[in-house]
Amino acid sequence: MAKPKKTPRPKAETPKGFRDYFGAEVTQRAEMLAKIAAVYHRYGFDALESSGVETVEALGKFLPDVDRPNEGVFAWQEDADTDKPGDWLALRYDLTAPLARVYAQHQNDLPKPYRRYAMGPVWRNEKPGPGRFRQFYQCDADTVGSGSVAADAEICAMLADCLEEVGIERGDYIVRVNNRKVLNGMLSGLRTEEATINHPMPKRFIETLEMTAEEMGFVDPSDILRTIDKFDKVGVDGVRKLLGKGLLDSSGAFIDGVGLSDPGIDRVLAFLCSKGDSTSETIANLREAIGADEVGAEGIDELEQIADLLAAQGYGPDRIVIDPSVVRGLGYYTGPVFEAELTFEIQDEKGRTRNFGSVAGGGRYDDLVKRFTGQDVPATGVSIGVDRLLAALHAKGRIDTTAQGPVVVTVMDKSRMADYQAMVAELRQAGIRAEVYLGNPKNFGNQLKYADKRGSPVAIIEGGDEHDKGVVQIKDLILGAKIAENATHEEWKDLSNQYEVPRDQLIDKVREILGLYR
Amino acid sequence: MAKPKKTPRPKAETPKGFRDYFGAEVTQRAEMLAKIAAVYHRYGFDALESSGVETVEALGKFLPDVDRPNEGVFAWQEDADTDKPGDWLALRYDLTAPLARVYAQHQNDLPKPYRRYAMGPVWRNEKPGPGRFRQFYQCDADTVGSGSVAADAEICAMLADCLEEVGIERGDYIVRVNNRKVLNGMLSGLRTEEATINHPMPKRFIETLEMTAEEMGFVDPSDILRTIDKFDKVGVDGVRKLLGKGLLDSSGAFIDGVGLSDPGIDRVLAFLCSKGDSTSETIANLREAIGADEVGAEGIDELEQIADLLAAQGYGPDRIVIDPSVVRGLGYYTGPVFEAELTFEIQDEKGRTRNFGSVAGGGRYDDLVKRFTGQDVPATGVSIGVDRLLAALHAKGRIDTTAQGPVVVTVMDKSRMADYQAMVAELRQAGIRAEVYLGNPKNFGNQLKYADKRGSPVAIIEGGDEHDKGVVQIKDLILGAKIAENATHEEWKDLSNQYEVPRDQLIDKVREILGLYR
Repeated sequence: MAKPKKTPRPKAETPKGFRDYFGAEVTQRAEMLAKIAAVYHRYGFDALESSGVETVEALGKFLPDVDRPNEGVFAWQEDADTDKPGDWLALRYDLTAPLARVYAQHQNDLPKPYRRYAMGPVWRNEKPGPGRFRQFYQCDADTVGSGSVAADAEICAMLADCLEEVGIERGDYIVRVNNRKVLNGMLSGLRTEEATINHPMPKRFIETLEMTAEEMGFVDPSDILRTIDKFDKVGVDGVRKLLGKGLLDSSGAFIDGVGLSDPGIDRVLAFLCSKGDSTSETIANLREAIGADEVGAEGIDELEQIADLLAAQGYGPDRIVIDPSVVRGLGYYTGPVFEAELTFEIQDEKGRTRNFGSVAGGGRYDDLVKRFTGQDVPATGVSIGVDRLLAALHAKGRIDTTAQGPVVVTVMDKSRMADYQAMVAELRQAGIRAEVYLGNPKNFGNQLKYADKRGSPVAIIEGGDEHDKGVVQIKDLILGAKIAENATHEEWKDLSNQYEVPRDQLIDKVREILGLYR
Repeated sequence: MAKPKKTPRPKAETPKGFRDYFGAEVTQRAEMLAKIAAVYHRYGFDALESSGVETVEALGKFLPDVDRPNEGVFAWQEDADTDKPGDWLALRYDLTAPLARVYAQHQNDLPKPYRRYAMGPVWRNEKPGPGRFRQFYQCDADTVGSGSVAADAEICAMLADCLEEVGIERGDYIVRVNNRKVLNGMLSGLRTEEATINHPMPKRFIETLEMTAEEMGFVDPSDILRTIDKFDKVGVDGVRKLLGKGLLDSSGAFIDGVGLSDPGIDRVLAFLCSKGDSTSETIANLREAIGADEVGAEGIDELEQIADLLAAQGYGPDRIVIDPSVVRGLGYYTGPVFEAELTFEIQDEKGRTRNFGSVAGGGRYDDLVKRFTGQDVPATGVSIGVDRLLAALHAKGRIDTTAQGPVVVTVMDKSRMADYQAMVAELRQAGIRAEVYLGNPKNFGNQLKYADKRGSPVAIIEGGDEHDKGVVQIKDLILGAKIAENATHEEWKDLSNQYEVPRDQLIDKVREILGLYR
């Protein structure tokens, strides 16, 4: 028989743009998701878990920020190699598109309104970059089938509760609320004004909202929104220049301006700076800045109602605030939009101090299931960036990572493995994370190196002598590391991190040591 | 401008073989996974979360029970439509193949031995059937890099702990342990015997383990193992017939036998029936049944050690037992194999009483990373079938599903939405799941229908009269349903499920009612 050809060894690598998560990375995220799920649940939201795979037909081609259809998703055709190729399938790219499909498919069985939360991985077929992965978690809550602003207000309150529940203290975050209708009202007024200045034409004509900027010979409204979005970074003066002729940035590069007229710029800035010291002041400023525009006025009324509903629940502007500078993917939203920002400062990778920034956002989008059923179904929702939140908690030192490794019972005498197993069983029954060293026990140094690699707080040693005397040796490895670190200091020199205790006091002594590092 | 062509509406459907999970289906599974994770963690296992997507190269073509390569997985090629097509990618079909890749990729950074657990969805591109889905959960724990049977024993103990932790009582489950080496020893002896009877040839030749059944002119060993696997169902007599000439089953169909000689059948049955009343009896019976075979004897020694190690930790044969009839996908395992079975009876879909059966299994497999690195790395692990376990708990009535819906605050007066929001905020702050009705409040009946659909235990009503009087109406909906059900019985007729309480006693009264249904 001919020898089979030797196949080359496969490469042990994740695909480009994917990664593995180990230990605390996994459990901390799971804990955070569980805490957020508990808040969502308390607000009456029900869990939904759809599969990772959907038909391309059901998903649609709605991936934000991607121009080409089909771009951005991982897709394949069922039975592609056969006579009867099947549906095109794809991995979900977010949790909203599957919600639309689920609602359209099951609407007769679902309560109306349907409050649901979903958390899980989504996949994007994008060019991976530093810190950008092609699989990541989303954590959403949406209310489908209610057009009431009470639904929007509720989501804002829930978002604030979620942040506090996972450990962001009050004062360290702010939920900012705006309304796409207000922005539309501002743009509409602006458009009329600019068009009158730049391109004299009948007002009746240029007021038509559906006209594109191109048709109007007017600047692209999205350029204005992008500039508004930079308000946080460049301030009033920067926005003024960017809306006008342009700005010389700190690197010396010239950034082209949007080209608005001076009255136009004033109008945008009046809107942008309408945030007052109180909600009523903000609302009054907004009414002044937006003027008579009908859609804009409706949007302002909604913001006022949201603020009132939140005040009734005890959420004041120290936690949730009306802020006209919030933009968020406007192409998508149709009403209130919200964004949660962490307000404390951190050091970025280059050592510069900056605000931590946005960790969650959402808003109202009213065309969720129309693609499927033709019906208008109003919906509003929020998505929390759990990985950003985890990074924030780490930056603030709010996640405890000490003493999480297991107690390691070392093996001094291979033939007494049953004794060591009995010890570890006792520890586990006492609720203490523990394990017996299961590698080759020959080299005792390797066992301690292993305990070190595991981040073990305590190692247990019971050789023949100890066994005969009925005692065990207990090593405090955290203290041991400190002693080693400070070995040159007098006061550390005589410290010992090893204790001999009777075998029947094993659990008590281990508990005592672990208690030191809680 | 030409009107854009109207695209037909997409179908709102999951792809074939996929499904959605709602509410309690999701949260009960999440709770079970969290409980199992806590046990795994206590045993020193670290979480690992790899991505759903792997390269086909790294995954290999190891899907059990599938003959054709590439069959059974969802796969696609990166940038297939471009000049530079990339790697073939696929969704993981289990959690073991990714573990092999992770261990080979990160072994310099991982502790040795590496104890890891992983839980998450896996995908199989199989023909969907009733109750068989193409995405399902796996929940695994494995120890990589230890050849010690202490690692196998530990996994068995952990499995027993997991079952008790999720609510399977002691006595309702049994973990059965066997060893592939013992089975191999039995087969090897059998082969020699059968070959001597049927095909006289030099013993030295036919003892070569690597020979295939075909080369030997001998029955396929996997036919014998499949028959052993039926022991539970057909008993000693059934196995005897199936190993010999065949069996007429209850439907009148004749099932061909394996065709062993009578001494061969006796040999298999001696092995199969070697389970005694105690571990030592079982071990003694096994030694007798297996005879001198070296591999078989080694396997029996290992089983004895496992039983000793478990006994030292307090796990007796009432929880974990040596049982020679356990087979489990033998092509894969190389040493100890284990299986957890629930021993209580349930009614199947046809109303027949039967044992619930297997909910978890695993064993030792020593070729995990060899494909990648050429090294032999011993490993052992277990996989728990969470969906089967959930079904078992439901069948035993051990999962409480009452009173899980939210308290619903109804809307009697739209203009007082802020008051209702204040109520619901109070309820939530008291830790009570609650929501305001956010649909159109016009029809009050619809609000109560909604509460019913949500499984709400309590509805709150505050109309204008109540508001003026400073009271609220609280409806016990669970009692209400009972009254409706028993409306013809005298003693139920005068019962009321509605209570009027002062507004400031809202929380207390709701708590009292919820307390009735805990």
